[in-house]
Amino acid sequence: MNIPDDILLMIPGPTNVPPQVLDALGSPSFYHRGAAFKELLEVCTEGLKKVYQTANDVLILTSSGSGAVEAAIVNVLSPGDKVLVIEGGKFGERMKDIAMTFGAEVDVLPVEPGRAADPEVVRRLLSDHKALLFVQNETSTGVRQDADLLAAAAREVGALSVVDTVSSMGGMSIPVDEWGLDAVAAGSQKAFMLPPGLAFVSMSEKAWEAAAAARMPRAYFDLVAARKSLAKGQTPWTPNVNMIRALAVSLELIFAEGLENVWRRHHALGEACRAAVDALGLRLFADREHASDVVTAVHSPDGLDSKELVSRVRDNHKILISGGQGELAGKIFRIGHMGCCQLDDLLRTIEATAIELNALGFACAAQEGLAAARAAYQAAMG
Amino acid sequence: MNIPDDILLMIPGPTNVPPQVLDALGSPSFYHRGAAFKELLEVCTEGLKKVYQTANDVLILTSSGSGAVEAAIVNVLSPGDKVLVIEGGKFGERMKDIAMTFGAEVDVLPVEPGRAADPEVVRRLLSDHKALLFVQNETSTGVRQDADLLAAAAREVGALSVVDTVSSMGGMSIPVDEWGLDAVAAGSQKAFMLPPGLAFVSMSEKAWEAAAAARMPRAYFDLVAARKSLAKGQTPWTPNVNMIRALAVSLELIFAEGLENVWRRHHALGEACRAAVDALGLRLFADREHASDVVTAVHSPDGLDSKELVSRVRDNHKILISGGQGELAGKIFRIGHMGCCQLDDLLRTIEATAIELNALGFACAAQEGLAAARAAYQAAMG
Repeated sequence: MNIPDDILLMIPGPTNVPPQVLDALGSPSFYHRGAAFKELLEVCTEGLKKVYQTANDVLILTSSGSGAVEAAIVNVLSPGDKVLVIEGGKFGERMKDIAMTFGAEVDVLPVEPGRAADPEVVRRLLSDHKALLFVQNETSTGVRQDADLLAAAAREVGALSVVDTVSSMGGMSIPVDEWGLDAVAAGSQKAFMLPPGLAFVSMSEKAWEAAAAARMPRAYFDLVAARKSLAKGQTPWTPNVNMIRALAVSLELIFAEGLENVWRRHHALGEACRAAVDALGLRLFADREHASDVVTAVHSPDGLDSKELVSRVRDNHKILISGGQGELAGKIFRIGHMGCCQLDDLLRTIEATAIELNALGFACAAQEGLAAARAAYQAAMG
Repeated sequence: MNIPDDILLMIPGPTNVPPQVLDALGSPSFYHRGAAFKELLEVCTEGLKKVYQTANDVLILTSSGSGAVEAAIVNVLSPGDKVLVIEGGKFGERMKDIAMTFGAEVDVLPVEPGRAADPEVVRRLLSDHKALLFVQNETSTGVRQDADLLAAAAREVGALSVVDTVSSMGGMSIPVDEWGLDAVAAGSQKAFMLPPGLAFVSMSEKAWEAAAAARMPRAYFDLVAARKSLAKGQTPWTPNVNMIRALAVSLELIFAEGLENVWRRHHALGEACRAAVDALGLRLFADREHASDVVTAVHSPDGLDSKELVSRVRDNHKILISGGQGELAGKIFRIGHMGCCQLDDLLRTIEATAIELNALGFACAAQEGLAAARAAYQAAMG
């Protein structure tokens, strides 16, 4: 099997995984009902609570991030419940699909791809909704929502906020308790520097109250069962023990760098990437005020198919960036800068992208992009 | 964190993982939408089809085995469907719970723990049931069902067979097509020699027909979506790429040994363990005709708490065996012999168990147990 191990992953997940984390992942498997696992689960849960900035439980699921999003939805809602979903990209669409599949009555606020939802509009639309569902960081468009304002709007009408932070938790400061986010889903393969395969959900007290009455069916994703098991240092189903062992190491790395420093580095990488985009004469796809710090989406220059750009950057430079998804295929490209990504990784990516843009007929000065990125990074790091 | 890496896992999962598989697991992460993943997914899917002995798709899920059991159930049933569940242990109970949670009308055939269901009784009970649900190898009791006869009984009334083979697939020959099993769930952490975290489901043509009409809600576990993605060499949600990479290696090991040889080795280990139980003067918990080849459950001698035995074997010999679950806690102990388990591992376990049984006041001759195990193994290997 030809799986190239020397490709720099500059996609919005999976990200590169640090060697210490890979070592833990490839360590012997072990028993999930013993004292060692109990201690491991406690350490990981406490670490996740710090990253989430919450005093509530953060539950660890063996699934991809989409599983955690499903868990967040089905544990607080009943069939027939009215919800409002903000849809401005592929992952907003997924939230809508899950809610509809499990029988919610779904109102959709469509938002133009690349734009964030206006909290005022959301406030006006909310009425007797049981919950507001939104993606805090929409990977498909590089847009960050004003999650604090959206959650406040939901709270005003007594609605729960169910939030997908799969691509952003850990890379951006998302103070779950301060902002009052009720059910918050995240995944392992982004800022947590792990492969895909684990997912996390926090639940507020209000969310747990809702869970007690919620009637959407759930078994594997039953968070009440997960919470009950957690109190005994266990999970209800056999968990991916090797991944949880690796999670403990990734959390150690995060806390060694310092959470604030990790967030600052991600912000600086975002600033650097955006500055390079400007300097190369490209156009950001996302509204600049809401541009994500973990993934940057860029308009492909007129007439230039971004799929071709992505292929050339991969084949000629061993760097993987992303194209657009769905209707945006060929029209945008995306650079992920999350997890263990460092400035050098981003600079290498900017240079490779500039070289291939020139080769495809879009004239731009790589050196100017690099200089702008360096300056913006330094300014942001302070 | 103190996670002991030198413990021999003789529990019914997670099992020990061979070093080659751990190496693959700890290799760099990679992109799940590229050519390399497509090839990997094809190789793994083809390998799983051989293990399952089926011409139908076997879908790979990022979840524990219980997720695959849920997927098998919710993809073929609708709320209100009448099903018959055989319940003779913890995992049969789990199938019942999942079916009830998602709205099936559940009839239960209770079977005394340690006994198998009588196919004739099942045949008489089946009427207008949409499906028969059963655990082919009940880990909690060490009992193997006559899956061929049970599936035939279901087929007679036009019912689907939904089968949990989580602990047995790969370790025992379960010819899915020949026996006509319709939806069959398995997990990575047993005979597949991987950590927990991946699960597998095969679906017969009849199961796919049922899926087209089935109305139990499913999103993360939507097998129709999984099948559609598989045709493109993808999965609908981000999969655990590192685990799938490790799965390819474990399948290579299985095929290098030869599937028939793997099954023969497991059967020989089962025979060896049962012979040792007899020679030590212990009593098998499972009906001998239906004793599992991957896990052996043993009555704890009168007055001897099996929890204490398990602790002593662990602390004094660095070997982990299992106690009983639920009502069987303290009353039975279980020895798992699956995956990469070799005769030497089992002999070490028998000796350690005999030593600790003596220490706890149950007189038995370790050497007789070992001799019986060796002889039975050799006889079975031929």
